[in-house]
Amino acid sequence: MRSDAFDARAGRRVFFKCENLQTGGAFKFRGAMNTLLQLDPARTPLVVTHSSGNHGNALALAARARGMRALVVVPRGSARVKVAAIEAAGARLEFCEPGLAAREQKLKEIVAREGGEVVHPFDDARIIAGQGTAALEFLAEIPEVDVICAPVGGGGLIGGTALAAKTLAPGIRVVGAEPANADDAFRSFKTGQRCSVTAPDTLADGLRGSIGVRNFKLLRALVDDVVTVTEPQIVEAMRIALQDLKLLIEPSSAVAVAAALKSALGAPGQRVGIVISGGNVDLEQCPFLRGSLPVM
Amino acid sequence: MRSDAFDARAGRRVFFKCENLQTGGAFKFRGAMNTLLQLDPARTPLVVTHSSGNHGNALALAARARGMRALVVVPRGSARVKVAAIEAAGARLEFCEPGLAAREQKLKEIVAREGGEVVHPFDDARIIAGQGTAALEFLAEIPEVDVICAPVGGGGLIGGTALAAKTLAPGIRVVGAEPANADDAFRSFKTGQRCSVTAPDTLADGLRGSIGVRNFKLLRALVDDVVTVTEPQIVEAMRIALQDLKLLIEPSSAVAVAAALKSALGAPGQRVGIVISGGNVDLEQCPFLRGSLPVM
Repeated sequence: MRSDAFDARAGRRVFFKCENLQTGGAFKFRGAMNTLLQLDPARTPLVVTHSSGNHGNALALAARARGMRALVVVPRGSARVKVAAIEAAGARLEFCEPGLAAREQKLKEIVAREGGEVVHPFDDARIIAGQGTAALEFLAEIPEVDVICAPVGGGGLIGGTALAAKTLAPGIRVVGAEPANADDAFRSFKTGQRCSVTAPDTLADGLRGSIGVRNFKLLRALVDDVVTVTEPQIVEAMRIALQDLKLLIEPSSAVAVAAALKSALGAPGQRVGIVISGGNVDLEQCPFLRGSLPVM
Repeated sequence: MRSDAFDARAGRRVFFKCENLQTGGAFKFRGAMNTLLQLDPARTPLVVTHSSGNHGNALALAARARGMRALVVVPRGSARVKVAAIEAAGARLEFCEPGLAAREQKLKEIVAREGGEVVHPFDDARIIAGQGTAALEFLAEIPEVDVICAPVGGGGLIGGTALAAKTLAPGIRVVGAEPANADDAFRSFKTGQRCSVTAPDTLADGLRGSIGVRNFKLLRALVDDVVTVTEPQIVEAMRIALQDLKLLIEPSSAVAVAAALKSALGAPGQRVGIVISGGNVDLEQCPFLRGSLPVM
C-alpha cells in the first residue's frame, strides 16, 4: 500500500508491506508456518514455545493448519486479549512467572514431561527464513526501492528481510528501526557486541526482547544501519498510518514508520519499503484509542 | 478484504470492497471521474458543486487529473479537515450559509457569473454510473454473493450498486443501510413516497442528506430492502472494523457493517458483500479516537 499524503510528509515515495493484514494479524505466521511445514505431523504431533504475544498465536494457528497440537507457555500478567487470542487459536496454555529465566525453565519442564518440538520465536533459521518471505513478496512486486526497513525486536524479521533483500538486490540498503527505549540492537550494531535490554519501557510490546544470536550475526553481516525513535514518535506514526493509510498498525510497526517520518530512511525523493509487522492493538489499552461508547 | 473474526461475529462469510482506500479516501472519486471523463476540458474548463465533504474533494481531485478547474461551495461551519482537504486538492472555495437553499442559491449565482458545469453529488446519471463501478469491480472478483449492501445517503452509491448487481446477476439481493436517525430512504422505500430528513442527528455525516429523485427511482426498481441501525451500533461497527480488519472506516461506512453485525443481511452462512464507502475520519473529533499524546 502507499499514500500520496504520507509521501508528502516523508518526502520520499514509500511502499508498505502490510503484515497487519496477515493471518493472525502479524508477520509471525510466516516463520511459524515455514517451520511447521518442515515437520511431519505424524512424527511431531506437538510443538511448544513461550510467548506473550504474536508468536504464540501464530504457532497455534500454524499447528492447527498442519494438524498438530500447540502448547504455549505464557507469563502471568500478559495482555488479556493476546492470551485470549492464543487460546482461541487452539493452543493449550501453561502459565509461568514473568521473566525469560522462568519461561525457559517452564518450557524445559514441559519438554521433559511431554516431548514436542520447541519453536523459538526468533533465534531459529526456519523462523528467520519464513519471516523473510514478507520482503521477498514485497520486492517481487516493488523491486526498485533504495531502502527497505523493518522493526527490530528479537531480530527474526530484520534478519529475514536482510537475507531476502541482499540476495535479490545487494544494492538495496537495509535498515532496522528500534525504540530508543529498547535500543539493544542499535547498541549491538554500533559496538559489534551483542547487547541486551531488561524490561524496557516502550509501547512497542513486540520489541521489548533482546536480539538473538543468529539474528545478531545477520545484523552484522547484512544490515546497513539501525535507527531509533522516541515513544512520542511511535504514537504519532500510529496516528498518521490511521489517517493516511486507513490502517491500524501496532506500536512495534509504527517504529519503522516513525523512522521514515523523521527522514531517517534514505535521501529525499528516494523509494523506501517498510514492512508493517502487525496490527494487533488492544483498543482498550492503546494510548490514543478509547473503547467507550459516546454519550448519545 | 475479509476476516475470519468478522465472519464469526456475523455468522456469514462477508467480503468488503474497501473504498476507504480509494483516491480521496471515498467512493466519490468514481462518480466525479466518470463525469469529468465525459466532458472536454477545452470546452468545459470549470466544474462547480456544493459539498461539505467527500464529493467536493473528489471533484477537485478529478478536475486536477483532467486539467480542469473546480469551484466548491462550502457551507460555513463545515468540518475544518474536510474543507482543508478540498482546498489541498486544488479547488477554489466559496463559502455560504448552511442549509440546502443557501447552497443552491450560491451555486446559481456562481454559474450565472462564471459559467461552469454543475456536477451534482448524487442526482446525476453519470455520478450514479461511476459509483456503480465499485460493485462492478467487487462482483468481478467475488461473483458468488447472496447479498450486497451499501449505505444510503443521497443514493448515488446504492443506485449504482443496484444497477451493477442486478445487471450482472439479478439473483443477488441488494440492500441499502441507513442510520435510524436519518431514515428518509427507509421510509421512502416502505411508503413508496420520496421522503426527506432535515439536519438529522447522526454520526454518519455522509448520510445526512435526503435521497435524490433519480436515486429514489432506482431504489424502488432495483433495491430489495433498506435496513436501519442505531448510533451505538454505528460506533461499535467502526471499532470492530478496526479490530478485525485493521481498517479505519468512516461512520457512514459503518452503517452497512453494523447491518451485517445485527444479522440484517441475508441468512446465516450466506455470502455477503459490503461496500465500505470511505475512511475520512477526523481523528480529533471521532467519539472513540482521541488525538492527545500519552503522558510518557
